Amino acid sequence: MIRHVLLDGDDTLWHNEPLFAEMTTRFKELLSPYHSTDWINKRLFDTEVRNLRYYGYGIKSYVLSMIETATELTEGRISGEAIREILDLGKRMLKAPVHLLDHVAETVTLLKRDYSLVLVTKGDLFDQESKIARSGLVDMFDAVEIVTDKDATTYEAIASRVGLDLSRSVMVGDSLRSDIVPMLQAGGNAIHVPYGVVWQHETVPAETMEGLKYATASSIRDVPDLVSGICID
Amino acid sequence: MIRHVLLDGDDTLWHNEPLFAEMTTRFKELLSPYHSTDWINKRLFDTEVRNLRYYGYGIKSYVLSMIETATELTEGRISGEAIREILDLGKRMLKAPVHLLDHVAETVTLLKRDYSLVLVTKGDLFDQESKIARSGLVDMFDAVEIVTDKDATTYEAIASRVGLDLSRSVMVGDSLRSDIVPMLQAGGNAIHVPYGVVWQHETVPAETMEGLKYATASSIRDVPDLVSGICID
Repeated sequence: MIRHVLLDGDDTLWHNEPLFAEMTTRFKELLSPYHSTDWINKRLFDTEVRNLRYYGYGIKSYVLSMIETATELTEGRISGEAIREILDLGKRMLKAPVHLLDHVAETVTLLKRDYSLVLVTKGDLFDQESKIARSGLVDMFDAVEIVTDKDATTYEAIASRVGLDLSRSVMVGDSLRSDIVPMLQAGGNAIHVPYGVVWQHETVPAETMEGLKYATASSIRDVPDLVSGICID
Repeated sequence: MIRHVLLDGDDTLWHNEPLFAEMTTRFKELLSPYHSTDWINKRLFDTEVRNLRYYGYGIKSYVLSMIETATELTEGRISGEAIREILDLGKRMLKAPVHLLDHVAETVTLLKRDYSLVLVTKGDLFDQESKIARSGLVDMFDAVEIVTDKDATTYEAIASRVGLDLSRSVMVGDSLRSDIVPMLQAGGNAIHVPYGVVWQHETVPAETMEGLKYATASSIRDVPDLVSGICID
């Protein structure tokens, strides 16, 4: 009954959050002479969210917010050397190898036999294109959609651009906020595959989830069975 | 005979280069205690081009390259305050009003009566989407394509995605390197509307242009007549 499977990229097909975590750890070390880890964490998160309206999502945005936080938290005393190290951390992250999650390659191959596949990934265009190329999965997708944000309107726009019937489409992703809730709001189906670590910004209040119907899988390996079990009213 | 008109955004529909120029001028003032303007210019350009493979095009990339250049040229002595000013310059630029070039609004309206219109713009996804929204032109386009780079393959991919016959399409833009040469290589037609100021990276060696057939317009106002005069073999 389902004809199209939409797949998220970061932390659904390939690991992403650990790279941010590693970069953040090193950033906190750099600022540890000035402030406590908790305070650095809080200020970095606040800066990042405040800057979303200027920068959007992605590694370059994160690097810019780290530099801003560093100048603020040190009252301008941050050294040029430390700034340079933050820039280098960003570049390493932008060129880091793309590691697929377990069972991704075989599951995507299996899904491709029965459904058209669309990659729907959020963030920086240049970085996402580069990661998709390095993932080795690009030939598996009938369409690739890189978007700046994922709300219900985004899924409707993708459906119209690519030619999908959302009621016969299912979105598979790790983020309730970006992958599950908006796809359901747009009239589609969804399967949640939690990643374990969730970026604070991607959490959703419990009341938003009330009454929403979607499946949960502990591994992407379980997705094909769940997709074939979806009954469309 | 032409059915589709593809339009570039930056410095074709709206002013862009003056924003970069203004930002660069202020950057050079910040570093003027350390180096000559020419040397700062050279080093900034070198850094920017070297970083394209990490960052791609766009304002965020430019800000990151300015910060890197500042730490290098001051051997780490750049102040946190100066770094903060560079970040602020970037944010102002990201939120600067979008000013259309003269005659753009009426020309686009005129073109829309006879052709399907596709906006093909290069750079940062988040920033370009925001500029397109602020331009007031979004409803004029049948499709909007934001790409990380413009080569012949890019135009072929757009043609296949949007459903264009390139031989019946014409690309209108200010950049020989991004708008004219690759569109002609892909089998399309092209009209060059020079902007006046050309970013050094967008220049093309004279021999590349030899034998290429395309029209040149001094203003976008001349484009409708030029489009209707294109004869397809």
